[in-house]
Amino acid sequence: MKSKNCWTIEESDSGLLPGERLDQIGFGGLCLIQEPSSFCYGIDAVILADFASHYVKPQDRICDLGTGTGVIPLILSRKTEASYMVGVELQLDSATRAKRNAARNHLSHRIAIVQADVARIPSPSPLGSLQRGAFDLVVSNPPYMRRGASLLNFADAKTVARHETAAELSDFIRAAAYLLKERGSLCMIHRPNRLVDLFVLCRENGLEPKELQLVCPKAGREPNLALLRCNKGGNPDLKVLETLWVYDPFGNRSERVSRMYESN
Amino acid sequence: MKSKNCWTIEESDSGLLPGERLDQIGFGGLCLIQEPSSFCYGIDAVILADFASHYVKPQDRICDLGTGTGVIPLILSRKTEASYMVGVELQLDSATRAKRNAARNHLSHRIAIVQADVARIPSPSPLGSLQRGAFDLVVSNPPYMRRGASLLNFADAKTVARHETAAELSDFIRAAAYLLKERGSLCMIHRPNRLVDLFVLCRENGLEPKELQLVCPKAGREPNLALLRCNKGGNPDLKVLETLWVYDPFGNRSERVSRMYESN
Repeated sequence: MKSKNCWTIEESDSGLLPGERLDQIGFGGLCLIQEPSSFCYGIDAVILADFASHYVKPQDRICDLGTGTGVIPLILSRKTEASYMVGVELQLDSATRAKRNAARNHLSHRIAIVQADVARIPSPSPLGSLQRGAFDLVVSNPPYMRRGASLLNFADAKTVARHETAAELSDFIRAAAYLLKERGSLCMIHRPNRLVDLFVLCRENGLEPKELQLVCPKAGREPNLALLRCNKGGNPDLKVLETLWVYDPFGNRSERVSRMYESN
Repeated sequence: MKSKNCWTIEESDSGLLPGERLDQIGFGGLCLIQEPSSFCYGIDAVILADFASHYVKPQDRICDLGTGTGVIPLILSRKTEASYMVGVELQLDSATRAKRNAARNHLSHRIAIVQADVARIPSPSPLGSLQRGAFDLVVSNPPYMRRGASLLNFADAKTVARHETAAELSDFIRAAAYLLKERGSLCMIHRPNRLVDLFVLCRENGLEPKELQLVCPKAGREPNLALLRCNKGGNPDLKVLETLWVYDPFGNRSERVSRMYESN
């Protein structure tokens, strides 16, 4: 399928290209092709996938906005019985790699990758499976850095993944509101300094924040990540969960985070 | 001074009335008249006063919205060099008691109590000292329970102190935005389940949330209170501070909270 702004990637090349590497990433035997010079997934994706997995029912349809190399759908395939997942990625190189990652893990029947601009998803002529109200859950680990925060190389893959050079936070939330069915959930991870923007944008778009979990690098530190679940059409009432610690006081991954790397 | 909706209380009775008791509450020798059947101050007020005190400069003017028996201005008189504090309280009994508490602690020259409805503060004919832009800092420990959350006795003093029977959260935030000078701070304590309402209302009223601190009863529990500082006209960028623990794992007040009961 091909249109002006997106196309579903059809290639199934499973060999490594120059600059790529193949990592065994846990979760009951997942492997991941990454290109370190462009972007490697971080613990944020693992924490978000684990958080989101608690809200997935069998046969759910999930969309991941800004999927990168597709690591979140891959992890969710191990942690949930979701029937169908779509990863949306703007950058062609990453989207191609995500498609190859799904194939390499024998998950092409459950994971589709669409190269598209998140800002263009709410559309009178929707792109393929990206239809209004088509998903039970939307997940997103969007670029953290506010647009205009610093001078950037807009053509650089790392920059696009980390900074709002392309779609902004408001675009991600508008796209989620469009894609979700009534009572569906958006699960997102972001920096705590954007929490006000997140809450205001989510409520403006009919996605009511229901659960917030702060993530601290270790005890006695300020949180550096925030997990948020919003409910489309939900009532105002936020539950703030117990804080999650990534490292224990001895500098090892906490037991809770270590367990996230197992499959369910 | 007297007007239709408020009057400054002039009486200076310092004896105890039936049902009242006199408590020594720390902070370098403060005493407090309370009537247990109507309302007694809680740790929330202590935590809020301590949090707010870090943003007070010498000679600042402070307004406390919903002051009850005036405990927050009393504590701030010990922790800061604020020159002038006004406590606003709707309920006549509480406002009278707040006035007597200021007198009994020899603080009437720094603390004024105004009986007024917070919802009526933004007004074309402002009440006494409650002028637009007159304060450097506004503090508030408002009623926590959402209006309409349950069947209530609206005439009961405890009910008015705990539930939004009179002014709502939006009234408190509108009043704060009106009273603060540009770059002035609002410091508020509330339940975490109202954080979305708080953020949305503050931004709508030009009060940008700048610092958030969650308060947990003890380690491993979910937070049950949230401290927020907003800046009038500030830029969007929230700092989430290290969580505050009220009790240590042995059930004793944590060292940090114990120190809050000392004067500075």
